Amino acid sequence: MPHLSIHAIQLIIEIVATFAFALSGLIAGIRKGMDLVGLCIVSGVSAFGGGTLRDILLDRRPFFWVSHSFWLWALITTCLFAMFFMRERHIVLTEKAIQIPDALGLGLFTALGTQIALDLEMPAIVAALMGVMTAVFGGVLRDICCNEIPKAFNDHQPYALLAFIGSWIVIGLSAVHLPEWLILSLSASTTTLLRGLAIQFKWQLPSQRSLRKSN
Amino acid sequence: MPHLSIHAIQLIIEIVATFAFALSGLIAGIRKGMDLVGLCIVSGVSAFGGGTLRDILLDRRPFFWVSHSFWLWALITTCLFAMFFMRERHIVLTEKAIQIPDALGLGLFTALGTQIALDLEMPAIVAALMGVMTAVFGGVLRDICCNEIPKAFNDHQPYALLAFIGSWIVIGLSAVHLPEWLILSLSASTTTLLRGLAIQFKWQLPSQRSLRKSN
Amino acid sequence: MPHLSIHAIQLIIEIVATFAFALSGLIAGIRKGMDLVGLCIVSGVSAFGGGTLRDILLDRRPFFWVSHSFWLWALITTCLFAMFFMRERHIVLTEKAIQIPDALGLGLFTALGTQIALDLEMPAIVAALMGVMTAVFGGVLRDICCNEIPKAFNDHQPYALLAFIGSWIVIGLSAVHLPEWLILSLSASTTTLLRGLAIQFKWQLPSQRSLRKSN
Repeated sequence: MPHLSIHAIQLIIEIVATFAFALSGLIAGIRKGMDLVGLCIVSGVSAFGGGTLRDILLDRRPFFWVSHSFWLWALITTCLFAMFFMRERHIVLTEKAIQIPDALGLGLFTALGTQIALDLEMPAIVAALMGVMTAVFGGVLRDICCNEIPKAFNDHQPYALLAFIGSWIVIGLSAVHLPEWLILSLSASTTTLLRGLAIQFKWQLPSQRSLRKSN
Repeated sequence: MPHLSIHAIQLIIEIVATFAFALSGLIAGIRKGMDLVGLCIVSGVSAFGGGTLRDILLDRRPFFWVSHSFWLWALITTCLFAMFFMRERHIVLTEKAIQIPDALGLGLFTALGTQIALDLEMPAIVAALMGVMTAVFGGVLRDICCNEIPKAFNDHQPYALLAFIGSWIVIGLSAVHLPEWLILSLSASTTTLLRGLAIQFKWQLPSQRSLRKSN
Repeated sequence: MPHLSIHAIQLIIEIVATFAFALSGLIAGIRKGMDLVGLCIVSGVSAFGGGTLRDILLDRRPFFWVSHSFWLWALITTCLFAMFFMRERHIVLTEKAIQIPDALGLGLFTALGTQIALDLEMPAIVAALMGVMTAVFGGVLRDICCNEIPKAFNDHQPYALLAFIGSWIVIGLSAVHLPEWLILSLSASTTTLLRGLAIQFKWQLPSQRSLRKSN
């Protein structure tokens, strides 16, 4: 992969992460019995919400979905297809089914958002924050559209924290000048893996309440 | 009207659509028993929310309410007036009463948002999306401020879909170089009319649930 | 203080107001039993939400938390410290405890937001609106993250209205060319004081409902 330009690598990551979050939104929407428009909205905001917030805050234009507007068509087609195809197969859409694409998107968007902010010479903590926001905001919008309390805020399982760790991997490895594709892969796979472990072993963040109980 | 400049036409549409959504917000706020500040906020976000989101995404400045700040005064005055005047007349504010200005604003903002995006040489699908967002986002903010689930997401009646159709009317007619005022009028009246029909005849979008039931 | 440059004064106010809102968010988060990540998010959006919205709308860059990213570290450290320290002391966090930093932040951010908009030669009503938004939006995001209906919308106690009054004090005193530090202090202390009085004496805004009852 080293002969790919950095822009090409970033583009591929953006596409895969966008697709992963779109899928998580689509599953969430189908579980809620949404109509076609609702499905398009919920998978659209899941997919493009985080990157768009990042680009607004960093004052970057054009947005991904403006310069690659083809993917808006892909999204609508996928939603249409899902709506009619899913009916036939009666797939059981468990809560778990959302978590796999969600974990993948989390890792990829974290790495990408941090990298983009570093390219713009943002301070490290701001770059970390951009990585977290890119990864988390799409899911927050998805949960709001589904009329649920955003998991990133209320669930005590680590989510934003893992994105924060993933961001610092990018920042740390960038400081020692590893090749970009390696940095992004290491960070994204670590975050995704940690998220998988967190779900599997039901890791819990300490909260005031739990700290108080343990007294 | 052909002797009006395109900027004048766009300005007139922005004013009428803004007023229509402000009215829908005002009625929603009064129904909820809001105080004066609440009324100003809810009619303000209904009126200016969609256009402001569009302008942030398209990186257009100044906003309508900055360059024509007179309309902020008009909004506050209307809210004050409504608050004291409505009391006297004991007007029955039915759910229906919101739908008329809402349908009008839907048509006008869709046409305008699409047109503005086309003027900035956005791809067609992005222009359509801008039309939909301009039209829908104000109402979404209105419903959130009223602590209700946004109708655009949860109601199975076509709403955003009609805005999407209205956008494509603008895009299609622009491609054949009809005069601007004619394009905007045709699109806005079609969308508003379709919305009226949808409410009157209780059109429903197909949802997963309804598809599954029909099996 | 007159020998301080205007930028230094604005910076000091931004820091104090940010800290006050961060504290209000922190208390709200602890009351909800949030984990560390939740605490960082809720105090972060409370602290930086209003100023960031103001800067996006005014197209000002860099954001306060980008150019002074040190304060992001301060926020995280404070949240960490609060989480472990508060447990020991079993401080009773009443609803009242949020209102003191909240009132302080309200006054300071109102004055600052209005001043910044006036510096950019915005019309008076737009400057007033920017003051109100800067002051109110952080608290709105805080309440949304805590899954509560924003107090600024639903509570009939004056809040945004006091910010509106504070804005006009800045606008009025700027018109007669008082020194900047005096304008900002007078406006901020008036707004904060009025908010204190409003809470103490349970001032109520007239609402449709109360008007109807009094008939």
